[in-house]
Amino acid sequence: MPRVVVDVMLKPEILDPQGQAILGALPRLGFDGVRAVRQGKRFELDVVDEMTEQTVRRIAETLLANPVIEEFTVHTG
Amino acid sequence: MPRVVVDVMLKPEILDPQGQAILGALPRLGFDGVRAVRQGKRFELDVVDEMTEQTVRRIAETLLANPVIEEFTVHTG
Repeated sequence: MPRVVVDVMLKPEILDPQGQAILGALPRLGFDGVRAVRQGKRFELDVVDEMTEQTVRRIAETLLANPVIEEFTVHTG
Repeated sequence: MPRVVVDVMLKPEILDPQGQAILGALPRLGFDGVRAVRQGKRFELDVVDEMTEQTVRRIAETLLANPVIEEFTVHTG
């Protein structure tokens, strides 16, 4: 059965407090060299062979992402 | 500056209630043809050129993933 992946990230202009918290914690844990962190979501969907990318995109914008503040990409796993 | 992506997913044997909730909602919203859903996290890190994959993996297992219940993959964005 095909595997489809939907990656959901906050739009670049939206503040990402989770990413900021990670960025702030890294030097305290001894990790240098990271300049920016963004946290998003990854969905792995097992779909029937007949599934179209168009339908996956409608699923993503309806249920997996908030199009007001998030953007998503669809690719095969 | 290089972009590194860390994908974090629950281990296959760990129950994923968020994925289950999405799977249950899809038919109610008129979407058929999805057989399984797993929800995970995606981290996008902008790192300095000298960053090694080994360091990124130590960051992932220390801060981004819980190795007891999650597995992660590192790749370039």
